[in-house]
Amino acid sequence: MFNNNDTICAIATPQGTGAIAVIRISGNKSFEVIHQIFKPKNENINLLDLEPYKVYYGEIYDKNQLIDDVLISVFKAPHSYTGEHSLEISCHGSPYIQRLILELLVSKGIRLAEAGEFTLRAFLNGKMDLTQAEAVADLIASQSKTMHELALKQMRGGFSNKITELRKQLLDFASLIELELDFSEEDVEFADRTQLFALLANLKEEVNRLLESFKLGNAIKNGIPVAIIGKPNAGKSTLLNALLNEEKAIVSEIPGTTRDTIEDTIMLRGTAFRFIDTAGLRTSDNPIENIGIERTHSTIEKSFIILYLIDICNSSVEEILEEVKLIKTQFSNLDKHVVILANKTDMLEESPKELAKLLEQETIFISAKRKENINLITEALLKVAKWDELSEQLIMLNVRHYAVLLEVQQSIANIEKAFADKLSSELIAIDIKNILHYLGEITGEITNDEILGNIFGHFCIGK
Amino acid sequence: MFNNNDTICAIATPQGTGAIAVIRISGNKSFEVIHQIFKPKNENINLLDLEPYKVYYGEIYDKNQLIDDVLISVFKAPHSYTGEHSLEISCHGSPYIQRLILELLVSKGIRLAEAGEFTLRAFLNGKMDLTQAEAVADLIASQSKTMHELALKQMRGGFSNKITELRKQLLDFASLIELELDFSEEDVEFADRTQLFALLANLKEEVNRLLESFKLGNAIKNGIPVAIIGKPNAGKSTLLNALLNEEKAIVSEIPGTTRDTIEDTIMLRGTAFRFIDTAGLRTSDNPIENIGIERTHSTIEKSFIILYLIDICNSSVEEILEEVKLIKTQFSNLDKHVVILANKTDMLEESPKELAKLLEQETIFISAKRKENINLITEALLKVAKWDELSEQLIMLNVRHYAVLLEVQQSIANIEKAFADKLSSELIAIDIKNILHYLGEITGEITNDEILGNIFGHFCIGK
Repeated sequence: MFNNNDTICAIATPQGTGAIAVIRISGNKSFEVIHQIFKPKNENINLLDLEPYKVYYGEIYDKNQLIDDVLISVFKAPHSYTGEHSLEISCHGSPYIQRLILELLVSKGIRLAEAGEFTLRAFLNGKMDLTQAEAVADLIASQSKTMHELALKQMRGGFSNKITELRKQLLDFASLIELELDFSEEDVEFADRTQLFALLANLKEEVNRLLESFKLGNAIKNGIPVAIIGKPNAGKSTLLNALLNEEKAIVSEIPGTTRDTIEDTIMLRGTAFRFIDTAGLRTSDNPIENIGIERTHSTIEKSFIILYLIDICNSSVEEILEEVKLIKTQFSNLDKHVVILANKTDMLEESPKELAKLLEQETIFISAKRKENINLITEALLKVAKWDELSEQLIMLNVRHYAVLLEVQQSIANIEKAFADKLSSELIAIDIKNILHYLGEITGEITNDEILGNIFGHFCIGK
Repeated sequence: MFNNNDTICAIATPQGTGAIAVIRISGNKSFEVIHQIFKPKNENINLLDLEPYKVYYGEIYDKNQLIDDVLISVFKAPHSYTGEHSLEISCHGSPYIQRLILELLVSKGIRLAEAGEFTLRAFLNGKMDLTQAEAVADLIASQSKTMHELALKQMRGGFSNKITELRKQLLDFASLIELELDFSEEDVEFADRTQLFALLANLKEEVNRLLESFKLGNAIKNGIPVAIIGKPNAGKSTLLNALLNEEKAIVSEIPGTTRDTIEDTIMLRGTAFRFIDTAGLRTSDNPIENIGIERTHSTIEKSFIILYLIDICNSSVEEILEEVKLIKTQFSNLDKHVVILANKTDMLEESPKELAKLLEQETIFISAKRKENINLITEALLKVAKWDELSEQLIMLNVRHYAVLLEVQQSIANIEKAFADKLSSELIAIDIKNILHYLGEITGEITNDEILGNIFGHFCIGK
C-alpha cells in the first residue's frame, strides 16, 4: 500500500493567499530535481553539493520561464523530519505560484504526497512511534492550552513510554509461559504465578485508569461540557454572551487570530468549555422537577459541570431558598460540580447581603446583563477543571488507543477467568499474546497498512 | 508615521490550519529575543553567534513552558528581505500555536507588524524601489499566467528602469533650464530647445503608450473582457458551462488548488477571460438590431472580444447568412475581435459542410451541449489575446502609476502650450520640475508617508 521509494511533494502551509508559502519535498530525488529547476543567486554555489541545514536564495525556473524568487532549506537523511533527503521551498504566498511549482515538481517525476505521508515516512523511518505521530495531528488541531500541553506531552513520548514499559514487563512473562508450554508434559512452572497476578493487577489498574482518563481527554479535546440550567428568563443567553465577551477581549489582543466560532464553545484562559444546549430545560417551568425527563437527564448526564442560574429579582427569598434546596437534593447523587449563580443583581435596589447569608451553598452573585462578576464564574469553572493537577497525569486523547485498550481490558478479564476456572496455560498464553499484540499496536511496534491508512488518512496534506 | 527602529513580527503564511506556519521577525532585537526563547537541540550551538542562511532545529519556551518544536532560519543585515536582521520561525501549523508564539514575541518587546511593513522596510532600506514593492503585492495576488509574468517583470525592475531612464534624460535638461534662470537677465539659452522638443516628444510618446497599456494591463489583471452575444436560446449559458468545464479539467490535476470561483471569469490555459453579462441582449429578439440601445452598446464597448453565437439548427440557411452579414456590417467599425460560433451541431442530421462553405467569415462549428470543439474557441480567444507578443512590451498594471502618468501628460501639454504661447522659461521650468517630481513618485525616489501608507496598507500582514 505505501510506496516509500519515490519522492513526494506538497504544500505544507495553510491553503490560501499569504506573504509566503512553503512546499515540502522528501525522498531520494529531491536534490536531483532541485538541481534542474533552481538557480541560486550566488553563482559560486554548487547545487550538487548543498549543505544540510542551510538556506539558499535563488530562482525557480520552468525551462526558461521564471516562476518565482524562493528560499530553499536543505535537510539531509537521516537528519530531517521524514528521515529522508528533504527540501523546503519558501515561495511567494500566491495560490497560483504554489500551483505552478507543484506542477513543475510533478513534471519532474515527484509525486504529490497523500495526507499525512511525510509523518508516515517519519514513522516508517523510525523518527517517531505511532502515538507520537498521532500527537502531531492533535498538536496541529489543538485550540486550547490544555489540549496543546497534552499533545506536546504525547509527542514527547509520554504515553508510549508508559505503554512500552507495561508491554516489556509482560513480554518477559510471555516467554516463560511459552517455555512452560514447550515442557508441558513435565508440569513445571517457569512463570511465577504470584508475580504474574501482581503484574496483571498492575496492568489492569493502569489500563482502567487510562480508559477512565479518556473521558477527560475527550472533554479537553472538545471542550469541558457545562450545562447552564435555570428557569425561563433566568438569563442563560445573556450569561453566554457575557462569557463570550470575556474570551473575545483576550483573543482580540492579537489581530488576525480570530478563532472559528464553534457554537457555544468558549475558551476561558486557554481552557475550552463547551456549553451544552439545554433547550430541553428551557420550556419547563421548573427544570429541577424535570430531571427525570429523559432529554433533560441526558443533557445533565453529558456535562461535567452544571451552572445553575437563579433569577433573584423575580423571586421571593422563600422561593429562592426553596429552589436552592431542591438543587441540592436533586443533584447530590449525580457526581457533578454544581455552581449556583444568583443573577440580576443589577435589578436589586440594595446589596444581596442578607440573601447571601441565607444561602448555605456557595453562590456567585452576578449581573449577566452588566457583565458583573463574570470573572468569578471563570475562576469557579477553572477551579473545577483543576488542570494544574491533571497535567501531572497521563491522559488518553485518542479514540484508537481507547478501542485498543478496551481489547486489552477484555483479555485481562479472560486471563482472570482462566485462572479462576483453572484452565490450561495454553489459553492464558493466547490472551497474554493478544495483550502484547494490542499494546504493540498502540505504539506501532506491531502494525499493518489498514491501521496506518486510518491514522495518516486523517492528517492534512503536507504533514 | 513609520517607525523603523523597533523590531516587528507577523505570521507570514496564510491564515488557518496547515502542516506548518512561518512567523517572521525583523529588526535589531531579533537575535536578542530569540536568545531568550529558543533552545537549540544541538547544545553546542552558540545562540549569540547564529550564522546567516542557516537553519536551526530546537524548541520555543515561554519561561519553563514548552510551546513548540520549530526550525529557525537566520538572515543578517543587509542580506535579508527587509535589509535588517531577520528570523523566520517555522512552527506547527496550528492557529493556537501561532498565537502563542506571537504573544510570546510581543511580551518580549517585539511589535506586531502592520500590513506590508516588511516590504516597506525593504523599500526604505533600499532593497527595492516602489514599483518593485508594488509588484510584490501584484505577484501574490496574481491568478493567471499573464498577470504572474507581468508582476515578475515589474518586480525585476522592468517598469522602473524605463521611468528612471526617462527621468534621467529630463534631469540633465532641468539643470540647464535652471542655469538659464540664474542668468535670465543675460538672455542666454543653455538648454538646446530642439533637443528639449525631441526629448519631450519622446517622453510624450512613452507616457501615452504606457497610459494606453493600462487598459490592457487592467484587462489582464481582471480578465480579458469577452461579450457572448446571440439570440435567445442560442446557447450562451451552455457555452459558459462548457468553457468552465475545460478549465476545471486543468485545475483538478492538482488537488487542493481549487480557485475561488469568480462569476463568469474563466482561466483558459493561464489567461483569465471575463465574460461580461449580456443580460441586456438576452431579452431582445435580434441583438444586432439593438446595438444602438445604450446598455447593449456599453456591454460591447467594454469588451475586447465578442463571441457571436448562432443557433444553426433553428434557423434556415438564408436566415443564418443574413445574420452573419448583419454582424459583419454592424461590428465592422467597432474595432473589436468578433468570433462567430455556429452552435448546436449535435442537432444537425448531417455535417454542416455546405453551410461552412457559404459562410465567408471564419466560423467555428461547435456543440456547446456535447462540449464539442470548445478547444477551438479557446485557441481563437488565445490567438486574439496574443500574449506572446505582448510579453515583450511594458504593460502598466498599477492604478497609482496611471494617475501619476496622467499628471505627467498634463504637464507635457502645459510645456507645449507654453512654447506655443512663447511663455517664459520660468513657467516651463516649473512643469519640468513637476514631471521630475511625478516620475520620481512612481519609483519612490520622491515619496511621503501618505503615498507609502496607501501602497503598503493594501498589502497582507506578514509581507
